[in-house]
Amino acid sequence: MKNYYTIIISVLILLTNVFPACAQNDKPDNNAILKVIQERKSVRHFTGETVSKEDLNKILKAGMSAPTAVNKQPWSFVVVTDRATLDTLAARLPSAKMLFQAGAAIIICAIPEKANGKSTEFAVIDCTLAGENILLAVESLGLGALWTASYPDKDRMDIVRSVLNIPADIIPLNVIPIGHPTGEDKPKDKFNPDNIHWDKW
Amino acid sequence: MKNYYTIIISVLILLTNVFPACAQNDKPDNNAILKVIQERKSVRHFTGETVSKEDLNKILKAGMSAPTAVNKQPWSFVVVTDRATLDTLAARLPSAKMLFQAGAAIIICAIPEKANGKSTEFAVIDCTLAGENILLAVESLGLGALWTASYPDKDRMDIVRSVLNIPADIIPLNVIPIGHPTGEDKPKDKFNPDNIHWDKW
Repeated sequence: MKNYYTIIISVLILLTNVFPACAQNDKPDNNAILKVIQERKSVRHFTGETVSKEDLNKILKAGMSAPTAVNKQPWSFVVVTDRATLDTLAARLPSAKMLFQAGAAIIICAIPEKANGKSTEFAVIDCTLAGENILLAVESLGLGALWTASYPDKDRMDIVRSVLNIPADIIPLNVIPIGHPTGEDKPKDKFNPDNIHWDKW
Repeated sequence: MKNYYTIIISVLILLTNVFPACAQNDKPDNNAILKVIQERKSVRHFTGETVSKEDLNKILKAGMSAPTAVNKQPWSFVVVTDRATLDTLAARLPSAKMLFQAGAAIIICAIPEKANGKSTEFAVIDCTLAGENILLAVESLGLGALWTASYPDKDRMDIVRSVLNIPADIIPLNVIPIGHPTGEDKPKDKFNPDNIHWDKW
C-alpha cells in the first residue's frame, strides 16, 4: 500500500512541475495580456495568405469595445478583402505598399457628426482607441498589422475616400493592412523612464 | 504490476481533466486577451485603496509599447500618487470627481514638438494609442480606470497644466484616475454590425 502512495505522490509532483503556472492560476493569464501589448509590432511583411472572416469579426468586435467620449461610438469600419481593391489601394497609397501582400485591410472611419459635441478631435481620439484594440487583437490571433496614416493628410484621405466610396464628411483615419506575418518584423522596447514624471512635471 | 499502471493512468486522466487548457496550450491564452479587451470598462467607483508602484510601472510600460508615427514617441506621462494632488485635481476638474476615491492618476502628455512633422494630430493620435494600452493594462491587473478628457478643452488643459507644472507647449491629453474598483461598473457590449462595411462604404 505504501508503494501506491509513493507512486501517486511522485506523479503529482512531476505534473505540477510540468504545469507550474496552471496549478495555481484559474484567472486569465495577465502576464500573457501584458506580453501581447509588449510584443505587438508593426508588421510590414506578409505571406500573401488570406485572413478569415471569423478572425476579422473578432478583430472588429475588439475595435468596437474601445471607450468613446459620452459613449457616442462615432465610428465605422470598412473591411477590404477583395484582392483588386487591396491592390488599387496599394498602388495609389505611397505609405501602404505592403497591401500587395496583405490578406485584408481595415479602414477606421471617424464620424465627427456623431461625436461628443460634433468634435473632430473626439471622433479621431475615439477611433484611435478602437485602432489600438484592433492592432492588439490582430497580434493576439497570430496575425500582423500596422497603422498607415491617412488623416491628417488631405491627399491620402481623398484617395481612400475615392477608392472606397467614403462620403466627404467622414474621416478615413488610416489604412490598416492585416495578414499573416513572415516573421521578419520584431517588436521594439520603447520603455524609457525619462518619460515618467512622478507627481509633478 | 498491472495495478500500478492503472493507478498512474487514472491519475494522469484526472489531472488532464483538472487542467484541460494547460495540457494542450503553451501559447498565450488568446481568448483571455480578447476577453480583457471586451471586459474593459470605464470604472468610476473606487475603494480608496492605493495603487502599487510596481503595478504603475507595468501600466506605464504597456503605454510606451504603443506604435507612434515614424517611431517618434512624442509623449510623457505624469503619474500622481500624492493624495493632496489627487484631491486638488478632483476639486478643480468637473469631469474627474472620482479622483477623490482613486489611488493614482496618469496624465498622458502629448508633445507636438517631438511628433512626426511636429504635428499636433500625430502627437494626439500616438498618445491616444498609448492611452488604450494603459486602460487595458489596468483592466488586466484587476484595477479600474477611465479616460477623462482634458484636450481639446482649453480650461481643463489649463487647470491640469497649472496643478502639475506642465509647460504651455505640452498638451495634457487626459486625466486617467486609477484605483481598485468597487465592482459597480460593468462593460458595455457595443458590437454593432451596422458599423461594418464590407469592401466598400
